Amino acid sequence: MCSRPPVPREPLRRVAVTGGTHGNEMSGIYLARYWLQAPRELQRPSFSAVPVLANPAATAACRRYLGRDLNRTFTSTFLTARAHPDDPYEVTRARELNQLLGPKASGRAFDFILDLHNTTANMGTCLIAESAHNVFAMHLCRYLQLQSSELPCHVFLYQSPGEESYCVDSVAKNGMGLELGPQPQGVLRADLFIRMRALVAAALDFIQLFNQGTDFPAFEMEAYRTVSHVDFPRTEAGDLAGTVHPQLQDRDFEPLRPGAPIFQTFSGEDVLYEEESTVYPVFINEAAYYEKGIAFLQTEKLNFSVPTLPALAPTPTPTP
Amino acid sequence: MCSRPPVPREPLRRVAVTGGTHGNEMSGIYLARYWLQAPRELQRPSFSAVPVLANPAATAACRRYLGRDLNRTFTSTFLTARAHPDDPYEVTRARELNQLLGPKASGRAFDFILDLHNTTANMGTCLIAESAHNVFAMHLCRYLQLQSSELPCHVFLYQSPGEESYCVDSVAKNGMGLELGPQPQGVLRADLFIRMRALVAAALDFIQLFNQGTDFPAFEMEAYRTVSHVDFPRTEAGDLAGTVHPQLQDRDFEPLRPGAPIFQTFSGEDVLYEEESTVYPVFINEAAYYEKGIAFLQTEKLNFSVPTLPALAPTPTPTP
Repeated sequence: MCSRPPVPREPLRRVAVTGGTHGNEMSGIYLARYWLQAPRELQRPSFSAVPVLANPAATAACRRYLGRDLNRTFTSTFLTARAHPDDPYEVTRARELNQLLGPKASGRAFDFILDLHNTTANMGTCLIAESAHNVFAMHLCRYLQLQSSELPCHVFLYQSPGEESYCVDSVAKNGMGLELGPQPQGVLRADLFIRMRALVAAALDFIQLFNQGTDFPAFEMEAYRTVSHVDFPRTEAGDLAGTVHPQLQDRDFEPLRPGAPIFQTFSGEDVLYEEESTVYPVFINEAAYYEKGIAFLQTEKLNFSVPTLPALAPTPTPTP
Repeated sequence: MCSRPPVPREPLRRVAVTGGTHGNEMSGIYLARYWLQAPRELQRPSFSAVPVLANPAATAACRRYLGRDLNRTFTSTFLTARAHPDDPYEVTRARELNQLLGPKASGRAFDFILDLHNTTANMGTCLIAESAHNVFAMHLCRYLQLQSSELPCHVFLYQSPGEESYCVDSVAKNGMGLELGPQPQGVLRADLFIRMRALVAAALDFIQLFNQGTDFPAFEMEAYRTVSHVDFPRTEAGDLAGTVHPQLQDRDFEPLRPGAPIFQTFSGEDVLYEEESTVYPVFINEAAYYEKGIAFLQTEKLNFSVPTLPALAPTPTPTP
């Protein structure tokens, strides 16, 4: 459920940039660590952004998580249940982050969380927002697209209708994820590090422009929204019986048409895409999704109008 | 130390193909699992090759290892020490494999082990042998190069002079490693799976040709031998202060000349290569080597003559 207001009514004063929500996605981990030592880079005239290393224990172990996926743990079930000694580490950590950056859905929550991720899939630069209804996030996506026009910069809407938000950025009043790939788990590539750093800087610039009273005109947006998940072909015992077809591998965001091969089995047969409609696969062959039974996500491409983001009414500058 | 005879005097009857020596290198893992169900593919007229999943516990956890790197554990220190309840899993497993495929340096050992690996580095197809003195392995490398002439197929000699061999293939009388990349840990790419499968088939064909009395003429070999390791730039506290420079990333086996950039620090400075001689970096930005303090290996390029591999004297066909 999206209970966030689509447009902020006041300047965003409390912003967090979270890295290491998954402990083996290195761009955000090393950016957060760097900014914790040198926070000036995240400073803007109207606000300061706080860097947060979201899952320090998993980061130390260079694993996605220790007990359960932290970025699926920010639901009311986990955040409000009574603490128990047997709670997985990430449940405890989600509650700590909820205290630090939330509480979720409260007036005391941070105004914005920008959450930094990597994928092993060939996703390029992907901006992850909950839904098209979040006008502020859509304008931020548009701003980032215009700033990085030499590279494609896709917008992915992750939330299914009626689904409760579960990501770390859902703790704040507003938020978004950056997903850069391909990068192997545990590897820090300079090109992606530089690109992510530039995207974070541009996102903070956008918030600064909004805070100082800029209005952003309406525009037409193209985005991708999840339709369904597709698992690998499997044996009767549940083991993999094949993997992503060479003709689908690395083709994230490209159209997949009926009859095209999607898997190649170990015995050499092609498995074809047999649905009737063209879809746009994303997160193709993402390492972290094997355990979730996901070889790729099928998305549909949407085109929709995003209304004007109106300028804030002038407010007094906060005293330093 | 290389105590192996450079040329076998008898047909190779007992061959093993090991996958999953590192539990998150997926090409060998899924090939070994497939062959355990369908072993006929590894059958040749003069011998059968046995598939072995070398580190099943690490494979189940999709981690390189649980307690210590199995592929650094086949030294006499580990193999001959008295078993202890606190031994890391991989020490126990190395002793099991030494019983199954060795004992190392004994007459009862397997004739050949082919060990299957992946790297996150852009190594393409890399054939890993202990040293240029292993005439049989050099001829096998040559055979594989000729079979896969459309792709570069580099030969890497891993053993430093005087160093005891520590890899799983050192348990057999002869052996070699295949290292295919780039592939993220935990990901199974169809293209690398197909390429590794073809290389294994060609290696078994070569052994079959040798067993049936083929001689292989002398030739000139080009190979790469380790000179030294290079660590990442680090802070005083030992954390990363930068990563592999975009101009070095993905350039495995290409010449690195004095004055070229090798790292980019997080504060934006370039670190240059300041030695006097050209080297050939390999395993550039390999995920598994961060914990070893290795950003890349520096190798030298060697050119040397490999003598004729003489035909075996005819032997009676073994009874089935």
